[in-house]
Amino acid sequence: MSARVRRHARALDLRHGRVDMTHGSGGRATTQLVEEVFLGAFDNEWLRAMDDQARCDLPAGRLVIATDTHVVSPLFFPGGDIGALSVHGTINDVAMSGATPLYLTAGFIIEEGFALADLKRIADSMAQAAQSAQVAVVAGDTKVVERGKADGLFIATTGIGVVDPALAIHANRAQPHDCILISGSVGDHGVAIMSEREHLSFDARILSDTAALHGLVADMVRAVPDIHCLRDPTRGGLATALNEIADLSGVGMRIRERDIPVRSEVRAACEFLGLDPLYIANEGKLIAICPAKRAPALLQVMRAHPLGSQAAIIGEVVADPFRFVEMETAFGGSRMVDWLAGDPLPRIC
Amino acid sequence: MSARVRRHARALDLRHGRVDMTHGSGGRATTQLVEEVFLGAFDNEWLRAMDDQARCDLPAGRLVIATDTHVVSPLFFPGGDIGALSVHGTINDVAMSGATPLYLTAGFIIEEGFALADLKRIADSMAQAAQSAQVAVVAGDTKVVERGKADGLFIATTGIGVVDPALAIHANRAQPHDCILISGSVGDHGVAIMSEREHLSFDARILSDTAALHGLVADMVRAVPDIHCLRDPTRGGLATALNEIADLSGVGMRIRERDIPVRSEVRAACEFLGLDPLYIANEGKLIAICPAKRAPALLQVMRAHPLGSQAAIIGEVVADPFRFVEMETAFGGSRMVDWLAGDPLPRIC
Repeated sequence: MSARVRRHARALDLRHGRVDMTHGSGGRATTQLVEEVFLGAFDNEWLRAMDDQARCDLPAGRLVIATDTHVVSPLFFPGGDIGALSVHGTINDVAMSGATPLYLTAGFIIEEGFALADLKRIADSMAQAAQSAQVAVVAGDTKVVERGKADGLFIATTGIGVVDPALAIHANRAQPHDCILISGSVGDHGVAIMSEREHLSFDARILSDTAALHGLVADMVRAVPDIHCLRDPTRGGLATALNEIADLSGVGMRIRERDIPVRSEVRAACEFLGLDPLYIANEGKLIAICPAKRAPALLQVMRAHPLGSQAAIIGEVVADPFRFVEMETAFGGSRMVDWLAGDPLPRIC
Repeated sequence: MSARVRRHARALDLRHGRVDMTHGSGGRATTQLVEEVFLGAFDNEWLRAMDDQARCDLPAGRLVIATDTHVVSPLFFPGGDIGALSVHGTINDVAMSGATPLYLTAGFIIEEGFALADLKRIADSMAQAAQSAQVAVVAGDTKVVERGKADGLFIATTGIGVVDPALAIHANRAQPHDCILISGSVGDHGVAIMSEREHLSFDARILSDTAALHGLVADMVRAVPDIHCLRDPTRGGLATALNEIADLSGVGMRIRERDIPVRSEVRAACEFLGLDPLYIANEGKLIAICPAKRAPALLQVMRAHPLGSQAAIIGEVVADPFRFVEMETAFGGSRMVDWLAGDPLPRIC
C-alpha cells in the first residue's frame, strides 16, 4: 500500500456517470470531480495548489476586469458550446478596453443528473479555448443543485487583464464625424443557436461566430491607438450596441444598411424566422469607432486579421441631441434603429 | 420635452413587479433593470461608465483572485441572505491568502417571475456588505432563464485583491508541531440554514455567522507574518478543511474536541438533526496554522478582534504519512475525523 492514502476508491465514470448532489457538498466527492474533470482540463500551477484563491503576477498597466454568466440553451450548438462561449465572451469583454486578457475564473452551477461526459467535454472545450487565447483559468468553483432547479449547466466567468494606461477606449467617447466600423458579418451566433433550438436546417449550415477577439484588438490598437470605442455586439445585436454607445456618448449615428455585412444564409434564415439580423447576438464580432481620418488605416489592419477579413465602415457618428441611430435602407429610404425591446431570442449566451 | 430622450417610459415597480424574460435580453429592459436595481445599490464610478469592463488601479503587491457561485436555499435566512453571503464568501477566499480584497464582480442568474422587491433587497444587502468591507463591486452581468429553469436566484462573485509578496500562506505549508487555531464557534451557518429550511425553531434563534474576515486576517498577519495556512471552513466544515490541508501539506493532525468551540444551541440542534458540527458549513470563521511558538501571540490578536473573540487553539500538526486527522474526544477516547462523504446539507452556500 502506498504511504499516500488514495482518496478516491474508484475513478469517476466519465462515460456513463452523472453528477449527483454529493459533487456539490464540498467534501470528498467535490474534490474528486474537481480533480478528475477540471484539473485535468485546465492543468496549471494555480489550480494544482488547490488553495481557495490564486496569486498571479501582473505586468505593468492598469487592471481590467469583466464578468459574465452563461445560460445559453442548448449547451452544444453549431460552431461551439457553452464552454468555448464562456471563455470567448469574457475575453472579449476584457479586450474591448484594448486590454490583454491574462486570467480567467470559472464557476459552475450544475443540475443534479447532468452527464459527466458532457461536463468533461465542456471543460475540455473551455480549456482549449483558453489555451488558444493564451489565458489561464486560475480559480474555479463548483455547485450542484437538485434536478429541476437549474437547466443542465450554467457557467460564470470573470476575466482579468491589463491595459496600457495611454489608451482611453470607452463607450462614451464617440464624437461627431467619427467613423463606425464592424469587424464582419452580423447575426451568425444567434441564428446558429435558434436553428439548433428549433431543429431547423437550411441549405447551408449556419455556425456560431464564437471567437476570442483580443488578437484582432491588439493589432487594431497598435495601428490606431486613438480608437474611441470598442464594443462586441452580443445580446441585443448591432442595433442595441450602437444605441448604447450613442446614448452614453450623447451623439447620434447614421448607418448604411448596404454596408453592413450579413451572410446570405443568415439573411434567409432571419427572413424565415421573422428576425432582424441587426438585433441578433454575435460572439466574435466587434464595433469600432474612431476619427474619420484614421478609419481607412483601421479598416486595413482589421481586414488583414482572419477575424476581421469582412470588416467594413458602416456609418458615421453625428451630432444629435436625441441620440438617435438612423439607417439608410438598402432601398434608399431611412428608418430609425431603436434599442431591442422584448426578447426574440432568450438565452442566446 | 427634454433633449435627452427618456429611455424608460415607466420606472420599474420595485414593490410588486417581477423579473421577466425581457430583463435578460440585453436590450432596453435589461438596461432599465441594471440602472434601477443594481446601479442604485452599487453606485460607483466603474459601473456608472456602463462599459463592458472596469479599469481599476492596483496598489503594489501580488494579484489575488478567487471566485464563488452561490446557490444557497433559502435566499433569506436568519443572520443574512444570499447577497451578503456572496460578498462575504468571496472576500474571505481572497483574504485567506493574507490579501486585502479590493474589487468584486457580481453575476446574477435570475428565474423568470422572481420578485423585483426581493432582487432589490438582495442587491442592497450585497451593496451594504461590500461597503462595510470597503470593497467595490466594479462589474456585473444579468441573465434571466425561464420559470422552472433555475431556483429563484443564483449569484456568481469574483474577488480581486493584493497580497504582500513576503507572505506565503498556502494550504500546503502545515508542518509538524504547528498549532491549529479556529477563530470561533463552528456550525452556526449550516444550522441556521437548516433550521430555516426545515421550519424548525429552537429555544434560542440560531443565526448564520456570515461575515467578512479580511479585517481579522489583516490584524493576524501584522502580528504573525509567518502564518503557514489560513482556510475558511465553509462546505464540508472544519473536518473537511483540516483534511484538505493535511492532504495538501502531507501531514497528520491531532485535534481536541473539548477545545473546539460549539455554541450550546448549535450543539443541541445538531443532536436533534443528527448532524456533526464538525462537518457543518461556516461563513465567518477561519482556521489558522502557525509555528507553535507564535501561537499564543496569534491567539491573543485573534481574541482582540470582534470576529475572533472565541478563538481557540484546537490541536497540533503531526508527522503522519497517512495524513490522518484524529480527534481526542470529550470522553478521552480517540477517533478518526474523515472528509465529508455524501452531502447532509445541500445548497448551504
